[in-house]
Amino acid sequence: MKVKVDREELEDILKKARESTEKKSALPILANFLIEASGDKLTIKATDLENYLVVSLKAEVEEEGVVCVHSQKLYDIVKNLSSAYVYLRTEGEKLVVEGGRSLYKLPVAPAEDFPEFPEFMEGEESLSGTFLLNGIEKVEYAISKEEGNIALQGMYMRGYEDRIHFVGSDGHRLALYEPEGNLSLELLIPKKSLKVLKKLVTGIEDVKVSKSEDESFGYFITSEWKLAVRLLEGEFPDYISVIPQEFTAEVLFVAEEVLKVLKRLKSLSEGKAFPVKITLTDNLAIFEFADPEFGEAKEEIDIEYTGEPFEIGFNGRYLMEALDAFDSERVWFKFTSPDTATLIEAEDYEKDPYKCIIMPMRV
Amino acid sequence: MKVKVDREELEDILKKARESTEKKSALPILANFLIEASGDKLTIKATDLENYLVVSLKAEVEEEGVVCVHSQKLYDIVKNLSSAYVYLRTEGEKLVVEGGRSLYKLPVAPAEDFPEFPEFMEGEESLSGTFLLNGIEKVEYAISKEEGNIALQGMYMRGYEDRIHFVGSDGHRLALYEPEGNLSLELLIPKKSLKVLKKLVTGIEDVKVSKSEDESFGYFITSEWKLAVRLLEGEFPDYISVIPQEFTAEVLFVAEEVLKVLKRLKSLSEGKAFPVKITLTDNLAIFEFADPEFGEAKEEIDIEYTGEPFEIGFNGRYLMEALDAFDSERVWFKFTSPDTATLIEAEDYEKDPYKCIIMPMRV
Repeated sequence: MKVKVDREELEDILKKARESTEKKSALPILANFLIEASGDKLTIKATDLENYLVVSLKAEVEEEGVVCVHSQKLYDIVKNLSSAYVYLRTEGEKLVVEGGRSLYKLPVAPAEDFPEFPEFMEGEESLSGTFLLNGIEKVEYAISKEEGNIALQGMYMRGYEDRIHFVGSDGHRLALYEPEGNLSLELLIPKKSLKVLKKLVTGIEDVKVSKSEDESFGYFITSEWKLAVRLLEGEFPDYISVIPQEFTAEVLFVAEEVLKVLKRLKSLSEGKAFPVKITLTDNLAIFEFADPEFGEAKEEIDIEYTGEPFEIGFNGRYLMEALDAFDSERVWFKFTSPDTATLIEAEDYEKDPYKCIIMPMRV
Repeated sequence: MKVKVDREELEDILKKARESTEKKSALPILANFLIEASGDKLTIKATDLENYLVVSLKAEVEEEGVVCVHSQKLYDIVKNLSSAYVYLRTEGEKLVVEGGRSLYKLPVAPAEDFPEFPEFMEGEESLSGTFLLNGIEKVEYAISKEEGNIALQGMYMRGYEDRIHFVGSDGHRLALYEPEGNLSLELLIPKKSLKVLKKLVTGIEDVKVSKSEDESFGYFITSEWKLAVRLLEGEFPDYISVIPQEFTAEVLFVAEEVLKVLKRLKSLSEGKAFPVKITLTDNLAIFEFADPEFGEAKEEIDIEYTGEPFEIGFNGRYLMEALDAFDSERVWFKFTSPDTATLIEAEDYEKDPYKCIIMPMRV
């Protein structure tokens, strides 16, 4: 292999490709990039056996070839070189990286050892990168962090009526973002792939989305890169039936105001989870925390409410994370009963089509 | 106790005082502040048994009193309150913290359990906060991070001729910052106290520096706070005799250029320490790294040098940390022999009166 590439462009794609490598695997080859010079392109492949990424950039190829090299080291060198171009060439068992007055020789691994990639198939449907990014960011926090139900280990995504549903849930809470759009597929995308996608889709106009015939892979294809994601198996729970429809108390809050109250209450507790009791009385919401060891706290917020007094408890962290994900200034808290799920949604649902459903806890 | 204070001012001093508490001690009282309302002041005391800090602020005291309360919790609450004033009062076994629509009750510990403080004595000598901060920041990195020689666990500071010496060393390298100034004392200040001092001295015009009669404490006293520091025992090595005086090769480098080269070489290695070989030949400095597992690298920098070829090895991390501490654009590398200490100093020593001495290593 002998090839010349633009340094900045190479840095940019190596940075993106790094996310799809795996440094802590028992298979050390997964910490490598596969680098292939062919035609007028340099192609980088990276995989952690869940994500399979292929990225190309323009290159002056003097001699074709393919080689595996440590991803982090190549990236660190290319990032810090001060030259405009980078020259890559193989020399015995080494990859020589040259730029300006710098010359590096990295050990290589045989290309045959690199895992085989699934065959990519480009579908007809597409979404914009911003749309996809937004969907992931809105619901990612609610995805289960615990082992257990496999279907809850990822983001569920599908077309539903004239909207696209992005859904995350850990069984105690559920986030549903449903902007307008069309998609005939359903995908259950694992957490790490969401991280990979977030890095890749920023600024991309058009991402083609499809699935392998056996439904084991989801494909995300753009003119700059191709990503195959091993989809989660298992059936995502029927989240629509979980959304409460009738309410006994509805209160409009300024999201920021509630967030500040929760942040203060949190300071009394230790650890991330903290119980919060919310009491609604005449035009007043009271937020309380009490712990025999840590102390007590009481916070008040004026609201418009003239219904029956109502009392409910939550894990304050769930409320904070839900409120953080809203784009709208004001949000509705819609309560059903102290033992059933509460719905939080934006004041103007069309502007921020986002629902959070949170199970209460006894406090 | 019943007292009213400005919220922002209280946040500010609690933030500073936090550094002198100790959360992981077997003595849980050290995670607390001692708070005392008396006269027209609220006084906060904090200690980790190495540092003893007293900070006061103006307060409207309705009822005098003294109480211990968890430092982090009080700080978190005060920081997040949205009111202009904070009201503190004791109520049974609780400290009530009130501001705006928020009311917090924190458990208290008896004031008798709080450690006794050394008596403060204000001396005649003083330095500006910026001067002190600068001295600490210039040499802190070179202080030993390993257990062992107690005298190397801190920063040595003393007057010497018409300069003040700030010195840090771990036996392999030494940093000496010697700006003009006068001081009759010598102090050996432990690492954690340097961290405490850095937070405190920013923006302070005048810090009075003195020592207790038995020389066990150093005192730093300002109009805003008083800090007693338990000084390290042991004799600081004779660092002056270590500074090389005669050189076989002297090269002027652009510090940033060498730093970039080292940063790239570092990317080949794993871990913080990495060996670098420097070779001087006709008007050329060559920096090399070689490791059978990680690969090889060669970097060149043009220099003015026409002496005998010269070769020396270093721990690259030591070079990087030393170069990072210089304020000047160009620095001299002054070599004696491949087995003895190298001196690095600024091109214009009067502008940046700073010397780094680094022992070579065999590579």
